[in-house]
Amino acid sequence: MQLLRAQPPAVRQRGYGQTAEEVVADAVFEENRRSMVIVRDIELYSLCEHHMLPFFGKCHVGYIPNGKIVGLSKLSRIVDVFARRLKVQERLTDQIAEAIDEVLSPEGVGVVIEAEHLCMMMRGVEKQNSRTLTSALRGSFRDDANTREEFLRLAHR
Amino acid sequence: MQLLRAQPPAVRQRGYGQTAEEVVADAVFEENRRSMVIVRDIELYSLCEHHMLPFFGKCHVGYIPNGKIVGLSKLSRIVDVFARRLKVQERLTDQIAEAIDEVLSPEGVGVVIEAEHLCMMMRGVEKQNSRTLTSALRGSFRDDANTREEFLRLAHR
Amino acid sequence: MQLLRAQPPAVRQRGYGQTAEEVVADAVFEENRRSMVIVRDIELYSLCEHHMLPFFGKCHVGYIPNGKIVGLSKLSRIVDVFARRLKVQERLTDQIAEAIDEVLSPEGVGVVIEAEHLCMMMRGVEKQNSRTLTSALRGSFRDDANTREEFLRLAHR
Amino acid sequence: MQLLRAQPPAVRQRGYGQTAEEVVADAVFEENRRSMVIVRDIELYSLCEHHMLPFFGKCHVGYIPNGKIVGLSKLSRIVDVFARRLKVQERLTDQIAEAIDEVLSPEGVGVVIEAEHLCMMMRGVEKQNSRTLTSALRGSFRDDANTREEFLRLAHR
Amino acid sequence: MQLLRAQPPAVRQRGYGQTAEEVVADAVFEENRRSMVIVRDIELYSLCEHHMLPFFGKCHVGYIPNGKIVGLSKLSRIVDVFARRLKVQERLTDQIAEAIDEVLSPEGVGVVIEAEHLCMMMRGVEKQNSRTLTSALRGSFRDDANTREEFLRLAHR
Amino acid sequence: MQLLRAQPPAVRQRGYGQTAEEVVADAVFEENRRSMVIVRDIELYSLCEHHMLPFFGKCHVGYIPNGKIVGLSKLSRIVDVFARRLKVQERLTDQIAEAIDEVLSPEGVGVVIEAEHLCMMMRGVEKQNSRTLTSALRGSFRDDANTREEFLRLAHR
Amino acid sequence: MQLLRAQPPAVRQRGYGQTAEEVVADAVFEENRRSMVIVRDIELYSLCEHHMLPFFGKCHVGYIPNGKIVGLSKLSRIVDVFARRLKVQERLTDQIAEAIDEVLSPEGVGVVIEAEHLCMMMRGVEKQNSRTLTSALRGSFRDDANTREEFLRLAHR
Amino acid sequence: MQLLRAQPPAVRQRGYGQTAEEVVADAVFEENRRSMVIVRDIELYSLCEHHMLPFFGKCHVGYIPNGKIVGLSKLSRIVDVFARRLKVQERLTDQIAEAIDEVLSPEGVGVVIEAEHLCMMMRGVEKQNSRTLTSALRGSFRDDANTREEFLRLAHR
Amino acid sequence: MQLLRAQPPAVRQRGYGQTAEEVVADAVFEENRRSMVIVRDIELYSLCEHHMLPFFGKCHVGYIPNGKIVGLSKLSRIVDVFARRLKVQERLTDQIAEAIDEVLSPEGVGVVIEAEHLCMMMRGVEKQNSRTLTSALRGSFRDDANTREEFLRLAHR
Amino acid sequence: MQLLRAQPPAVRQRGYGQTAEEVVADAVFEENRRSMVIVRDIELYSLCEHHMLPFFGKCHVGYIPNGKIVGLSKLSRIVDVFARRLKVQERLTDQIAEAIDEVLSPEGVGVVIEAEHLCMMMRGVEKQNSRTLTSALRGSFRDDANTREEFLRLAHR
Repeated sequence: MQLLRAQPPAVRQRGYGQTAEEVVADAVFEENRRSMVIVRDIELYSLCEHHMLPFFGKCHVGYIPNGKIVGLSKLSRIVDVFARRLKVQERLTDQIAEAIDEVLSPEGVGVVIEAEHLCMMMRGVEKQNSRTLTSALRGSFRDDANTREEFLRLAHR
Repeated sequence: MQLLRAQPPAVRQRGYGQTAEEVVADAVFEENRRSMVIVRDIELYSLCEHHMLPFFGKCHVGYIPNGKIVGLSKLSRIVDVFARRLKVQERLTDQIAEAIDEVLSPEGVGVVIEAEHLCMMMRGVEKQNSRTLTSALRGSFRDDANTREEFLRLAHR
Repeated sequence: MQLLRAQPPAVRQRGYGQTAEEVVADAVFEENRRSMVIVRDIELYSLCEHHMLPFFGKCHVGYIPNGKIVGLSKLSRIVDVFARRLKVQERLTDQIAEAIDEVLSPEGVGVVIEAEHLCMMMRGVEKQNSRTLTSALRGSFRDDANTREEFLRLAHR
Repeated sequence: MQLLRAQPPAVRQRGYGQTAEEVVADAVFEENRRSMVIVRDIELYSLCEHHMLPFFGKCHVGYIPNGKIVGLSKLSRIVDVFARRLKVQERLTDQIAEAIDEVLSPEGVGVVIEAEHLCMMMRGVEKQNSRTLTSALRGSFRDDANTREEFLRLAHR
Repeated sequence: MQLLRAQPPAVRQRGYGQTAEEVVADAVFEENRRSMVIVRDIELYSLCEHHMLPFFGKCHVGYIPNGKIVGLSKLSRIVDVFARRLKVQERLTDQIAEAIDEVLSPEGVGVVIEAEHLCMMMRGVEKQNSRTLTSALRGSFRDDANTREEFLRLAHR
Repeated sequence: MQLLRAQPPAVRQRGYGQTAEEVVADAVFEENRRSMVIVRDIELYSLCEHHMLPFFGKCHVGYIPNGKIVGLSKLSRIVDVFARRLKVQERLTDQIAEAIDEVLSPEGVGVVIEAEHLCMMMRGVEKQNSRTLTSALRGSFRDDANTREEFLRLAHR
Repeated sequence: MQLLRAQPPAVRQRGYGQTAEEVVADAVFEENRRSMVIVRDIELYSLCEHHMLPFFGKCHVGYIPNGKIVGLSKLSRIVDVFARRLKVQERLTDQIAEAIDEVLSPEGVGVVIEAEHLCMMMRGVEKQNSRTLTSALRGSFRDDANTREEFLRLAHR
Repeated sequence: MQLLRAQPPAVRQRGYGQTAEEVVADAVFEENRRSMVIVRDIELYSLCEHHMLPFFGKCHVGYIPNGKIVGLSKLSRIVDVFARRLKVQERLTDQIAEAIDEVLSPEGVGVVIEAEHLCMMMRGVEKQNSRTLTSALRGSFRDDANTREEFLRLAHR
Repeated sequence: MQLLRAQPPAVRQRGYGQTAEEVVADAVFEENRRSMVIVRDIELYSLCEHHMLPFFGKCHVGYIPNGKIVGLSKLSRIVDVFARRLKVQERLTDQIAEAIDEVLSPEGVGVVIEAEHLCMMMRGVEKQNSRTLTSALRGSFRDDANTREEFLRLAHR
Repeated sequence: MQLLRAQPPAVRQRGYGQTAEEVVADAVFEENRRSMVIVRDIELYSLCEHHMLPFFGKCHVGYIPNGKIVGLSKLSRIVDVFARRLKVQERLTDQIAEAIDEVLSPEGVGVVIEAEHLCMMMRGVEKQNSRTLTSALRGSFRDDANTREEFLRLAHR
């Protein structure tokens, strides 16, 4: 594909050669506290698998630890690992949540992505200001109203 | 009618020749994940059926899939299909929600329209800054407080 | 009264010669849908009945129809009908809600007024930045937490 | 024309039955001071004479008196007198400046209009966020760099 | 004390010679409506009783009447009566709520103060951007989740 | 006149019983430095002499001393002395500049007023967002491009 | 090239099959007035000819007519005609200015483009917030300080 | 370590030589009122214990007293005592909450930290705009939905 | 004086025991480049010598070196040295400029202070939103229009 | 040095192993147009050579070509090459301007850096909100008032 070929090999394949486990392996620490951790406004660049056009925006990731925490920059790396592959935004959101779930087995996890799709901006309907938001909530982020409220209030301005 | 006649035929009839099913037909995909999808700030232009004067603004559309998702730009297209006909904003909001409901049979759907009406800005009462908001919530967006809260918080800044 | 006398007669008496029913009479339509309708940021000018000094600001009006809707600009007109009389803001808020209740018998109605009072800005305590907010909630807007939340979130930025 | 016919007669003909002289006749006062006067953010609604679609926005008007001043609200009225006729924005801007020039013979006059054109927002190129600015500067507003600078800095935020 | 001595006597003693009852006595009116009333962004200047340094900011006051309302500017006056004495912000907040409670016996009352303390800005820890918020909620403002939510959403932007 | 009569006598007559010289008499100090002094955003309330309706907004005052400076709060007092009389905004602006010129004989003086007129907001043309700006520049503020630029840049955001 | 091939043919070739003259041919009008005309914030999407990655942003176009004006939406069309070809931003800016110069022979013309380049956001240096601005000024926009100042102040917020 | 050695000794060791009890000892007062107290936007500078690179941002602290209050500036001091040691943000948040819990035995306590980490901005993933938020809620701030809501709404804009 | 006595001795006398030369002595470096250096938004706290009430705000300092530069934090220290003494803002602005002039003999120096005066906020005229700006320009900052423009544009947002 | 050692070798030495010529060598293109090119808001991270503490912020770079242009991302790379070495901000600004001057021999070049210094935020004077701006202007950016004005207006918001 022309678009990816134009990128240097190191960038192009960053997303394909790694699993979430490899990315975080040496950065998981024991931690008994259970307060919410959020990394907000992680830049995200991906390619829509239907149109081969970029979509990009911000990802907000949060979790409540259950014995293990992960280095903060690893949350950004997990976002990158999945975003650098061909994607639809809906699935990307779920996969990030799933990966954090598997790596940390937290009490709960939440992921929100807010993106602009060049396919919507440049072609056809030409809606130039619209944004697509997708959210994936698991564990206490899905089941507990207080936790969900706390996450949405802090993560999404 | 003069106003519509002044537009090129292609634009004028875009709204009348199509159903929601035709618009989305080839862009519905199987998907088992059930996370919320929102397209926010879709530009919307319509004509008030009482005064033949434009109203325009933004439409926010969200749904939780139930086995099927639709290409994101198709949500904008559905908005266009209904907006390009003579309308009142209240019915337009409901029709967009209904169309998505029929095409995707989602767990729930929500539509919010925030518009300025030239009939209010140019004539009579001359309230130049007022905005009209209408919302239509169906399924879990109507019945589940958490889902409704998540939609309103993410869709409406 | 000097202040009103300085206005052209047409404006001065606009508020006194009309009832809410007269204003909306020919603009009530049958409608079976029950989604919320809000007109936000309606400019409002009134005269405080205690100090004969103007107060002005914005009024947000919302309702959920119960078989009848009203032309959007008529909601602004109802606000005008009551605001143009000598008023206290608390009663003005309630009267607007009451008038909509009587004319449309909706499932619920909500009115919020946010105003600056020249009597507070120019005299005595001289608190130049304070705003007065009053709200009147009826039917499902008062009794149903979800409806109230939806109204306040959409109407008040 | 349908659009204007849909308006009540009083509004429709407001622009055609009046000259700038009639509008301001009884509101011109002797004044020997020569400081700049600006009315900023005057709402403006007009109809593009090529597409019969509305354009609307804000008009900023300034002048330096030369023996005569005019009631402030008359400057808004002059804007209305010309805007209510079929127009192109370029000519509208010049005509407002010209009318003020004739009525007041000021030392200088400046007019800036910043508008959105529905013909650009709804049709063809579909550039939904673009604004059109036109300016007309006369007398010292055109010839004196200091005066021009003072006007543009104060009028246009 | 030097700081107060530098003020003209009329200001210095304004806070000490008056009770809340005296301030509002002739401005309490019968009113059977029970909608919420809020005065937001009342400027507030006080002196910290520990450091003799000013703190200042904004006070938001709300209540739901229970048969009696008070002139709006009197709510500002009550804030002044207590703020002009030596204070800690926590107690000041409670005393304002208590005074309104006693004067009006409302269904509920809420007070929020958001202030900057010169003692924190100029001395020791030198945290130049921090703000102190205190809230006092009574009656239905404390016990009813809907009322509390309505107050906080409207009063605190 | 009713409006003024509704104010307590002390406020009503504040503007009439004083000259600028009386206001500043004991607050003029010798000072040999010649740097610009600006007091920005002075609140201003006045009554339009044509319509007996309030206009209000902000006044920015600047001067470059020429041997004498005046207490900063006196500049606000001078604004009050003239604003509390019946006025047109154009003359008010000039009178404030003139008064400072007479009291301090500065190298130059500049005054800008940015106001909303209730007569434009409530009546007739109903242009609810427009602002009126007037400026009066004297001495080096009028003649020297650098000084004028410095004043306008610092005083007017 | 994959990216363009993924677009529907109508869009893909829009840029290549047209000259500026064809685009504007029937929309040039005689006009003897010489006031500045600006269309601001025209959305722009293009492809960097070095990296085959999109760049997008806003284009501001202004000119002073010299006997001829052009329909406002045609200025947007000219931007599109050149943007839809493979480009570097520096040359695109100049070509738009040149095309307007040829079609209208105006007294002067100015073009400013402010864009984000995906090649800078996604690859290598990863400077995610930087914007590239290019400007092309011709005739009086280049040679006359007042004209240049007027254009930059009005076009670029 | 070079970074700390470059600081003057007084700053470097401020965090190590003190316990929370020592910091607040003489500033705890009896107080029977139970209204919420929040100090918002306390600047915070710390060093990430994994990368030896600074992280910095803002800390919001709130509690509901249970018989004792503490001088407001002491809350800032407690933040400093823990921030000046090598830290991970998750633990820092909990330790501040714990320290306040021990010193005041309040009805509840809440701490939110929003920080930028130079390790995420300068190295590796290079996500230059992301922020990390951590929260620690104890007592009624964790268990009571109303209290939690009140804290999050007032503390976090 | 009570207010100063309430501060710890180290703070109270910081301003009196030091000259600008002592503050910067060991932080002046040889530097042959002549580009402008600005430190913007330096917090400033001082005491008005007429009313013994605080004034506070921000100071912007700039200079063009002429062979010598000074450590950036020393510019803040110089501001502190003069601000901590009893002051009028006009003289404080000049003294800071003078001190930098003496210590560095730069090509030019500029100082702007923007402050709020509690004496204007709490007493008498009660103009709660006004700000006082003073500027002192020396050397090329006073004499060269380009340099002055560059300083004001970069220092004052 | 500990801080740099904590970074991966590739990052640490990026600044030292490269000259500006090496960075841009293969990305200089012939170009005869002479319009201004600006890259704004390039993130910048550096280490203060006096305190070994980071400073970071944004760099704006502009030039007018004189026969040669350079790939836009190379301007960011040049900023990185110099920023990654131990620096004072004044010299860094000049070196970036000098490097562009040498590589492109443009008609003129301008560089503005706006940074926060942790040494000012964390230590000693503790001025937490101040920013340091430095500018370096060469060729027509220094000598021509129009060019300087155009650069400052477009580059610095």
